[in-house]
Amino acid sequence: MRGKFYSVGIGPGDAEYITLKAKRVIESADIIAVPVKKYGEKSTAFGIVRKAVDMGNKRVEEIEFSMDRDRSKRLQSRQDGVEKIARLLDEGNNVAMITLGDVSVYSTCTYVNRQIKCMGYENEIVSGIPSFCAAAARAGISLCEENETLAIIPALTSEENLDKALDGFDNVVIMKAGRNTDRIYSCLKRRGMIENAVVTSEIGMENELIEPIAQGGEYGYFTTVIITKKPIVTESGIIKERTEK
Amino acid sequence: MRGKFYSVGIGPGDAEYITLKAKRVIESADIIAVPVKKYGEKSTAFGIVRKAVDMGNKRVEEIEFSMDRDRSKRLQSRQDGVEKIARLLDEGNNVAMITLGDVSVYSTCTYVNRQIKCMGYENEIVSGIPSFCAAAARAGISLCEENETLAIIPALTSEENLDKALDGFDNVVIMKAGRNTDRIYSCLKRRGMIENAVVTSEIGMENELIEPIAQGGEYGYFTTVIITKKPIVTESGIIKERTEK
Repeated sequence: MRGKFYSVGIGPGDAEYITLKAKRVIESADIIAVPVKKYGEKSTAFGIVRKAVDMGNKRVEEIEFSMDRDRSKRLQSRQDGVEKIARLLDEGNNVAMITLGDVSVYSTCTYVNRQIKCMGYENEIVSGIPSFCAAAARAGISLCEENETLAIIPALTSEENLDKALDGFDNVVIMKAGRNTDRIYSCLKRRGMIENAVVTSEIGMENELIEPIAQGGEYGYFTTVIITKKPIVTESGIIKERTEK
Repeated sequence: MRGKFYSVGIGPGDAEYITLKAKRVIESADIIAVPVKKYGEKSTAFGIVRKAVDMGNKRVEEIEFSMDRDRSKRLQSRQDGVEKIARLLDEGNNVAMITLGDVSVYSTCTYVNRQIKCMGYENEIVSGIPSFCAAAARAGISLCEENETLAIIPALTSEENLDKALDGFDNVVIMKAGRNTDRIYSCLKRRGMIENAVVTSEIGMENELIEPIAQGGEYGYFTTVIITKKPIVTESGIIKERTEK
């Protein structure tokens, strides 16, 4: 009998943000599939899961998803990963693949789950807390209230898309902003919106950082910029309370 | 010594979507504050929490947040609620206020937390899984992949805002859509986008429902419409796999 595939979101970094469901599914799976950019590389997600979940002598399988700039190499790597998982399922194993944040928000799990489903395997998605929710909570900003709107865009989107989001939405979250804060800074500067933005990085992790956006800032991969149309950052860099409408 | 205030997101309805952190905070609090629209009314959130969290003989306090159409009545009710919580904190109690979904996404907790913080009380926001993540997972739709963009808007937004979101974004989530699916249907019909939408309702609860959008549908309060530019619903109502770009 073929095993079942689970895509499991483990939240943004704090092991306590793992859900009861994620913990149960991981603990009862036969194999934990751990996505890595390169075989042998350390997985942030696995390090987090180990803090909160009893791994016993559970079998762990790394699955490589290359981030090569060459798209055909990335696609081939994904296909190899899917086939490796399919073999484990064919052997009768229930496989839980872990991913940081939520499965439906910029995660490789989305692709893998779809392929596995197309191949006829039983599957289930277990949601996790998206990083932008935890970032907003730590920064003391609400993402949307009353009839406000929210745009979520990747940092590598076009300048046009960034402007469209800032024009039309009350609140904007820019994901994967690590290497792009200068581009974002320029855009906000041009629009006179510097005070509306907060940079959040590695939320829930050891080097958590929440600060006003500035030029020349250097941030890691897990960086999110939150922009809201009500000013929240004063000139002295203190995050102000937003006043009620 | 004054107590600490916690705003705790408990996720979208499935008790297993409560996080380890939410469980710990609720179990260690002196008082659970339960927001209700009217004193004595049943709380969906409290019913969910009781399934997964050991409540022992914990003190539970309802806090009324009126949904009266009169804005001044709503604001007065909020202020009364905040003052009630402040009194409990002054007596030295740690108070955990629970809310469905995530605290930063259309939650009354956002307002209460800000007021409590302004009054100088120690406070912490505990994030929860937003309903739209669980809805996307159950519908088998990803909210954003690669460089896609995502707009999250309330159903009561203007037609113009709805069009702006549908024009400019790859994926759109419409929250609180219960009584507004006909308006959304008309807009999608006009744009030839009926096949791109899925209605999700009471995800994770007893009457969970996932179906193509149709005219005349009647849905409850916990209804979310997810729209993606790649067709996902066939004419026969079967949700199709999205094909990889």
